[in-house]
Amino acid sequence: MEDKYVLGLDFGTDSVRALVVNARTGTESGSGVAYYQRWLAGKYCRPEQNQFRQHPLDYLEGMEEAVKKVLATCQEGLAPNIVGIGVDTTGSTPCAVDQAGIPLALLPQFTDNPNAMFVLWKDHTAVAEAAEINQKAQNWGGIDFTRYEGGVYSSEWFWSKILHILRNDPEIRRAAFSWVEHCDWIPALLTGKTNPLTMKRSRCAAGHKAMWHQDWGGLPTEDFLLGLDPLLAGLRERLYQETVTSDQPAGELTAEWADRLGLPVGITVAVGAFDAHMGAVGGGITENTLIKIMGTSTCDVMVVAPDKIKGKLIKGICGQVNGSVIPGLVGLEAGQSAFGDVYNWFKQLLSWPLEAILPELNGLGEADCQRIAEEVGQKILGRLTVEAKNIDSKESGLLALDWLNGRRSPFADQTLKGAILGLNLGTTAPRFFRALVEATAFGARAINQQFTSQGVEIKEVIALGGISQKNDFVMQITADVLNLPIKVAASTQTCALGAAMFAAVAAGQYSDLSSARDQMNSGFVKTYQPRPDYVEKYQGLYQAYQAVGKKLEEDLRKL
Amino acid sequence: MEDKYVLGLDFGTDSVRALVVNARTGTESGSGVAYYQRWLAGKYCRPEQNQFRQHPLDYLEGMEEAVKKVLATCQEGLAPNIVGIGVDTTGSTPCAVDQAGIPLALLPQFTDNPNAMFVLWKDHTAVAEAAEINQKAQNWGGIDFTRYEGGVYSSEWFWSKILHILRNDPEIRRAAFSWVEHCDWIPALLTGKTNPLTMKRSRCAAGHKAMWHQDWGGLPTEDFLLGLDPLLAGLRERLYQETVTSDQPAGELTAEWADRLGLPVGITVAVGAFDAHMGAVGGGITENTLIKIMGTSTCDVMVVAPDKIKGKLIKGICGQVNGSVIPGLVGLEAGQSAFGDVYNWFKQLLSWPLEAILPELNGLGEADCQRIAEEVGQKILGRLTVEAKNIDSKESGLLALDWLNGRRSPFADQTLKGAILGLNLGTTAPRFFRALVEATAFGARAINQQFTSQGVEIKEVIALGGISQKNDFVMQITADVLNLPIKVAASTQTCALGAAMFAAVAAGQYSDLSSARDQMNSGFVKTYQPRPDYVEKYQGLYQAYQAVGKKLEEDLRKL
Repeated sequence: MEDKYVLGLDFGTDSVRALVVNARTGTESGSGVAYYQRWLAGKYCRPEQNQFRQHPLDYLEGMEEAVKKVLATCQEGLAPNIVGIGVDTTGSTPCAVDQAGIPLALLPQFTDNPNAMFVLWKDHTAVAEAAEINQKAQNWGGIDFTRYEGGVYSSEWFWSKILHILRNDPEIRRAAFSWVEHCDWIPALLTGKTNPLTMKRSRCAAGHKAMWHQDWGGLPTEDFLLGLDPLLAGLRERLYQETVTSDQPAGELTAEWADRLGLPVGITVAVGAFDAHMGAVGGGITENTLIKIMGTSTCDVMVVAPDKIKGKLIKGICGQVNGSVIPGLVGLEAGQSAFGDVYNWFKQLLSWPLEAILPELNGLGEADCQRIAEEVGQKILGRLTVEAKNIDSKESGLLALDWLNGRRSPFADQTLKGAILGLNLGTTAPRFFRALVEATAFGARAINQQFTSQGVEIKEVIALGGISQKNDFVMQITADVLNLPIKVAASTQTCALGAAMFAAVAAGQYSDLSSARDQMNSGFVKTYQPRPDYVEKYQGLYQAYQAVGKKLEEDLRKL
Repeated sequence: MEDKYVLGLDFGTDSVRALVVNARTGTESGSGVAYYQRWLAGKYCRPEQNQFRQHPLDYLEGMEEAVKKVLATCQEGLAPNIVGIGVDTTGSTPCAVDQAGIPLALLPQFTDNPNAMFVLWKDHTAVAEAAEINQKAQNWGGIDFTRYEGGVYSSEWFWSKILHILRNDPEIRRAAFSWVEHCDWIPALLTGKTNPLTMKRSRCAAGHKAMWHQDWGGLPTEDFLLGLDPLLAGLRERLYQETVTSDQPAGELTAEWADRLGLPVGITVAVGAFDAHMGAVGGGITENTLIKIMGTSTCDVMVVAPDKIKGKLIKGICGQVNGSVIPGLVGLEAGQSAFGDVYNWFKQLLSWPLEAILPELNGLGEADCQRIAEEVGQKILGRLTVEAKNIDSKESGLLALDWLNGRRSPFADQTLKGAILGLNLGTTAPRFFRALVEATAFGARAINQQFTSQGVEIKEVIALGGISQKNDFVMQITADVLNLPIKVAASTQTCALGAAMFAAVAAGQYSDLSSARDQMNSGFVKTYQPRPDYVEKYQGLYQAYQAVGKKLEEDLRKL
């Protein structure tokens, strides 16, 4: 019998990746990446105001390019044996759609309106709305609608973003029939089922970001939404009450998209989910393992058997949803709003003279300047890492708070900001950088502590994502601070691999997801063991991080 | 009658300046600067440990070069009409000397030992010793030896530094007969009166930095010093009990030095004092005027009539000494341990890629690299200033603490460190810089508040020093934050001008210092008026600075 293949599509922050794997073994047959062109050009974003938007065309063009690339790297004649597609995306990344389920930015009148586009996970324009939601949702006639989302609703999530845009853009308000998550829209589009009223909605997105729960019959009640703002009147009916886990099919690939992508017509497209959740599966998640997806931000995922958790609520994390990661188990999600982004910020800071001053020097042509600025810029983080490694942790003398993009967990608060304490006239760039790395590790530890203090035991950490593959120094410090071994998954594309696993189950290649995970996972390339002397040193500094963080929260909010 | 001239010698942190002025009008006849060569090469210093030492040869070579330069710029035949020399130096900048009063580093066996050199004002190696001194000196059998020095003894001062070196360097311990301040040693050397037991000691240095006061008969008592450390046994007797104000002669210029410097033999050399104090006089200090000398650090000087202060102690400043600035008035001193140095630190941070990475790029020669790094480096602060000016103060969203070199006033504490709060992923270099400028202005305001809350009224500020002449942006922000007009003295060399005024009085050209000041001052070039809208904005941010500073003091000390 000929081998079957599945395609995983992973829509990340900057690019979309397509991965084709053998449905029986998980072995990679090929992969392709395409970057979002408008996004790369900085369009529709205002970083200084934390506004980050993505045009739906970036997704469509990127998907076509990535799939063409992956098919070109696979052995000839493989495409007809692809039996399913799985889709993961960032989230919460919602977008306003019309009655046909078309994102408004695809309509001519809204093509350049950032409010008609997908509101990227890290967009924090809805801070005020999140505060309002928290105030009302935590006790609405005795119901706490945030109870399965860690007790704090974030400005990064579905309702905050919807409310912000409805309030601030009258044109979008009039044109928005319903709203979709990025991970719902792609499968709907590929299967021709974009009607917002019947579109299959992801359990993962709904449960973790939209306060959806069976306890109150689905989305929060109409009277709560009305109480929040009359602008939301009737929207609940134009969204959804039913949700679906991603081992289920969303539908079959339409002839149009089969043609555009070069794939067989009618193959199964699984219900979508968030990248971190599918990545956690791709990385081999099991009970008592924390999956840490480490990139620009982190997403921290665990699964627990329902009978172990017995209806108990885990506080201060981003969500606890039955079946959001592995059907049958309760998925728990937490995360750091900025991880690699903290380092990238510092790189950007240090690059300022190269960008602002270098071009003004006499005797240097434009091309020279650009080359120098680029080459130096590219080397900054690598060189900082090398030098920071040689600084004794006791000697850095600095303590940083990693909330440069707010704090997602524990206890989401996007109004928080970063800080660095202990600067003196001898503070060098590598020392500053080391403190930032330590701060991101402390942020990771605060999340672990949030889990374990509530009885969710963590025996080991599996790390996925760019940083886990590329930066030994950051990984070692993180293991030291967490005082836990960290295994690094062998696959560099665990999100797409996870999406492929879901595709395999939805397409009937496995009876359940655990079997797909056990057969198709990639194993590990490396394990970081905590170093006892550093464990002890960081124990003390972590206490200081906690104490100073608590002390400054109020002040940071006001800045 | 032919005009007489006086020479002011101003030993700063990086260089020595020589200024010749007309003794009647104060008009500048010429000036010369010489940089300290060993210091410029970074010798004997360990900035990461806050160790800053200066070799006495740097002073001697620098003095010769500067005086030769100034004479070369004066009209021919002027030198014989020079009738006096005044000397100011940084301080507290003490050095161990042998029985002949020779700084130990001038002896062959100690020529490379940093502990045998002048311990520059900003050296903070004696933090532990300062803590110990504070513990014991604040209540020694009912006496508070720190009472005329603001109630807190600093690691930047005389006894802390002596104790630190005696404890840590047995060879210096054996060889050190006595100790001198830089401002005592230069006049002693020029007049051939270096015997430590009879050397004229500056009232200013003694009163402000060595706990000297008539109340307890001079320096702190032998039993106190013994109680501090038996290593100090007998040292008091090898120092001094008498001190002299700088309107008095230290002696006459020796033939040897007259020859080396090209000046008339036997002219009067006035007793030395600290740069800030002579600068305050040069800048035109009067009652109710705060003189702010703004350079790498600041020194803030006031004078009050003894009957107005009526024996009251001004707390939290660096000292209150009868006659230390103007004989007959009580001199009050405070200061910020880092001001321009805070900006220089940031420049250095941003220069890191140019220094660490640029030289590794392919295709660039060493000379090119050096030129690019230098030229970009030189432009960083200027460009930051231009861009920071355009940021609305409300928008910076940052709050910094300016204690990157500890805090001198209010309430000296060199164990404090700097911090910056409110960082987010959009924080740019100009925003960061603006927050640092605001922080140094807040530090200035804390000092003003310390004076005024204790009844020392400040009606205006006169600014001296490099920053007051060069940086409009910093000066305007400082005026806004202080909510006071700031006048900028016309002379760019007010310290040397002040020294020249003292020389004129010591040489008998005036009956008292106030007359010399009134005749010889340079007037003002500019006045910065506070802008009402900014005054209000900064009022709130200053409150936050105070509150956050208080909250973090304990944590910053521990880092």
